[in-house]
This record gives sequence, C-alpha cells and structure tokens, in this order.
Amino acid sequence: MSTRIAFLKGHGTENDFVIVPDPENAIDLPPSAVAALCDRRAGIGGDGLLHVVRSAAHPEAKEMAAEAEWFMDYRNGDGSIAEMCGNGVRVFARYLQRAGHVGEGDLAVATRGGVKRVHLAKDGDVTVGMGKARLPEGEVTVSVGERSWPARNVNMGNPHAVAFVEDLAHAGDLLAPPPFSPASAYPDGVNVEFVVDRGPRHVALRVHERGAGETRSCGTGACAVAVATARRDGADPAVTGTPATYTVDVPGGTLVITELPDGEIEMTGPAVIVAEGEIDADWLASLAG
Amino acid sequence: MSTRIAFLKGHGTENDFVIVPDPENAIDLPPSAVAALCDRRAGIGGDGLLHVVRSAAHPEAKEMAAEAEWFMDYRNGDGSIAEMCGNGVRVFARYLQRAGHVGEGDLAVATRGGVKRVHLAKDGDVTVGMGKARLPEGEVTVSVGERSWPARNVNMGNPHAVAFVEDLAHAGDLLAPPPFSPASAYPDGVNVEFVVDRGPRHVALRVHERGAGETRSCGTGACAVAVATARRDGADPAVTGTPATYTVDVPGGTLVITELPDGEIEMTGPAVIVAEGEIDADWLASLAG
Repeated sequence: MSTRIAFLKGHGTENDFVIVPDPENAIDLPPSAVAALCDRRAGIGGDGLLHVVRSAAHPEAKEMAAEAEWFMDYRNGDGSIAEMCGNGVRVFARYLQRAGHVGEGDLAVATRGGVKRVHLAKDGDVTVGMGKARLPEGEVTVSVGERSWPARNVNMGNPHAVAFVEDLAHAGDLLAPPPFSPASAYPDGVNVEFVVDRGPRHVALRVHERGAGETRSCGTGACAVAVATARRDGADPAVTGTPATYTVDVPGGTLVITELPDGEIEMTGPAVIVAEGEIDADWLASLAG
Repeated sequence: MSTRIAFLKGHGTENDFVIVPDPENAIDLPPSAVAALCDRRAGIGGDGLLHVVRSAAHPEAKEMAAEAEWFMDYRNGDGSIAEMCGNGVRVFARYLQRAGHVGEGDLAVATRGGVKRVHLAKDGDVTVGMGKARLPEGEVTVSVGERSWPARNVNMGNPHAVAFVEDLAHAGDLLAPPPFSPASAYPDGVNVEFVVDRGPRHVALRVHERGAGETRSCGTGACAVAVATARRDGADPAVTGTPATYTVDVPGGTLVITELPDGEIEMTGPAVIVAEGEIDADWLASLAG
C-alpha cells in the first residue's frame, strides 16, 4: 500500500466504523491493515471496517451486481471477514447517500450474507431488512453473580439469550460472558441480552456480545429482544397478521424494530458520518514495512 | 460551531490525540465538543485533544509568545483542562513539523505547565523536557490481590508509586486501582507502575493511571520508573555528574528516558500522525443542537 487512501468515520447507535470508499476495488486491504486502521489508539479506530466497492468489481459480489450496485465488503476490527453487520449496512447506506451515489428511498446492498434491503428516510433514519428470527424450543437460564434468570432462545443467524430483568444494573459489570445452561443450547457460545420495560412496546437492553464483551449496540441483539418481547406480550405477527413494532433503547442510542407478518424483521435507526479525510501516506508505508 | 473544522489523529506510544489546528484561536471548543470529538465510538476518538494555537492569540499563552510561538491548549478526553501531557507535546511538535511551521531541531512549546523544550530528531523521534523528579522519603506498599510489593514514591508533578515485580502478569487485570499504604502517602490517589527488568538499563512497565485505569502509555510514569530504577541501581546523576539513560518499554511502544546531572528529565520516543481530514459539518451542527 503506497498510495493515499480516503476514509470516513461513522457510527450507528455507537457501533462505529472506518469507511474506505474504493469503487473499483483497487485498494489492497490485508487483515493487518484493517486491524491497524481499526486500532483505537494506534490507528483511526472502529468496531469494524466498511470497504465500499461496486459489486461488479468484486469477485465475491459479481453475481449480485444486477440486483445491488454496491457491495459492503465488511471486515471485523481484528481484520477477519464477516458476513453481515446490521448497523454497518445502515452506515454504509448513509455513506452512499452522502457521496451522491444514491438518493432517499429504497436501495439494495450486496453483502456476504446476501442482498439486503435498505430504506433511506427523509428524516435521516435508515432501515435495513435483518431477515427472520428462529425461536428454538427449550428452557434456557443465564446468570450473573448470584442472580439467575430464565431466557428466551432467539436465533438471528447468530444465537441470542434474552433475559427480562428488574433492573439493568443487576447485570453487573458484564466483563465476563454470563454463564448459561444447558450447555447444549449454545455449543458455540451466545450473545446475552438483559431487558427492562420502559413503556408500551418500549424496552431497554444491555448486551454481552460473544467474543467482544459488553457493547454500545448490537443490531441482531435488538431484533432478538423485540421478538422475545413480542412473544412475551402475546404478539406474533404471523398469527395476527399485524406488524409488531418495538422501540429498543441500546446503550448507544435507540433502534426501532418491526416484525412483519411474513416474519421479516426491519431495523430502523440513525446512521451518522462524523469525519472524512485521508490516511497518512507515511504511516501507511510504515505498516507495510 | 457552524464551520468545518480540520483535524488530524496521531499518537505517541499509543497515547492518542485528536489534533485541531487553529492558529488564530478562532474555533470555539467547549468541553462538550471536546468530549464528543474524543468519544471513541460516537466521535473520532482520543485520550485527549491538542488545540494548536499561536501563543500570541491565546490569553493563557500571550506572555509566553516571545519564547514559544505555539501554544498547546491541551484538553482531556472528558473536555476538562490539563496543564501538560508529555506524549501530547511530542505529537504536537510532530504536527507543527508536518504542517511546515517548524523544522528539525530545537523548539519551544508553550503549555499551561510552562514553556517546554522539544527536539525533533532526524530519525523522527521527538524529545521533550519533562522537568525534575522529587523522591519523597518513606516506605510505601502497593498490592494486587494477595500480592504486595514495596514501592518507590516518585513525584513528577503528579504522584507515582513504582513497584519492581518478578512478572508483569502478577499485576493481574489492573481493572481497579491497586491499594496502597500508608494512605497518607497519596492523599489524592496515585499512578502505580509495575516494573520488570529487560536488560541493562532496560525495563518494561505496566501502569494504572489514577482515574483512567490501565493505559498503553504514561509519559510521567515512564520518567518515574527510570528515576526509581536508577536509584535502585545506585545511579544518581546529581552525584555522579553523568546522565543516566534508561529504555522503558510501555505497552504501546518504547520510550527512552534520560536524567541529567541537574535533575532535568528528557523523554524521547516516536510521534505519529495517522490521518488528516475534516469534521463533518452536519455532525458538528447536531452537537450544538
């Protein structure tokens, strides 16, 4: 990497990203460079990196090019590849709008998890289709310290345990993964959400993300919580034929989750660009060395 | 704040800063804006902010203008004012050089802690004069879990307890401030350094900074450790008339600390600019709202 690279920084409910526009897929972004860019102290800093590429220019996205002009080549902060990131897609769409590539309204974005439907609203909020939830049967329990709670097992492509608690402070400092049982419920670990009611169809959560610790926001977690809360409240759009909409406060902001009668879940919330610039050429060169 | 604001991001041994060039002191930077800019997820992110102003243009620095053209208006990440930051001055000098305001060689920088002497070396390292250490008498003990160690009380303008340990892992996760005794040694709390030998005049440290937790680097901590190690080794430049130089590995890099016969301490290390750009105007406006 010897040329200058443009970047932006943005976030959705404080799930934050380094954005690297690269329509023709000309920039080499090995895992080491991604990790350096996402390093919060030695680099720019972000939970992940959004590499913005035209689908037609990327081997992993070519087949989606007819349906979705732009491909979100999403990378985790450690440089590894990820299929999808709900808050990431919303920030990705906001960038496309800002750059003049798309306008308000509907948009399709190619991801490794398939083509995602996005809507850019006039008020600035961005909606993304998050797919359907699965609700495996069986009792699950999560605990923190001396306290234990029954939890709802919700799968959004990744596994969640949703526990309704009296007070979010009962979840403690959430430094360690909350133990759960039975172990067979989540052979690969689980994301754990603690939920309190805030009002009619309005809840707040804290989340411990598998492998990441407590985070400011988790898109699939907010969806899992909305579905678990709807079922608790006796609302199932597949039965009633009516969408169920919940407002979900996460530590980094507020998301609105709607489950449609066909099971599709839409997540709506803010997506913000904070700054824009160029990565320093000398620093880049020192990374390659 | 309604105009665009230029910024850079840089770090010294992973003590990182948002840099805001503002020669004529025209930008209003209230604590809320500084805290928003330094927020690692909702903003750009940094341990602190370096507001770069001509001394003559700033009421707090006017009197230093004849001696030092540039004033480091340093802010902590929470928006509060700080007198000085050793790693910050080094990154500040690197910015002045990059912007063409100064060249290699010696430089004076005005700070709220007085005028600091800086040297920009050809190899890219930056040296800053850190003042003198005081070594209050009296036994001090620090502990982590079941382990306790005798510690050296070193004051670099701020208080330090320097403990030599067998293994840096013995300091544990350093999430909580290590207890110390007697309480009277540090009525306002203390920065605690754990130190191991790495070779001749070469040590490594971990540090728990008062109010901040474990950090990647602490300039005054590295100086305190070098002085405590020199005394342990029987080296006192005031007695021998010879400078004592120690290499100090911090988690975020390596610093070289030299204590001169007159007691002055110089800190040398890397200072890196990572990226440069503009803060988003809409985001800025939303902060003011």
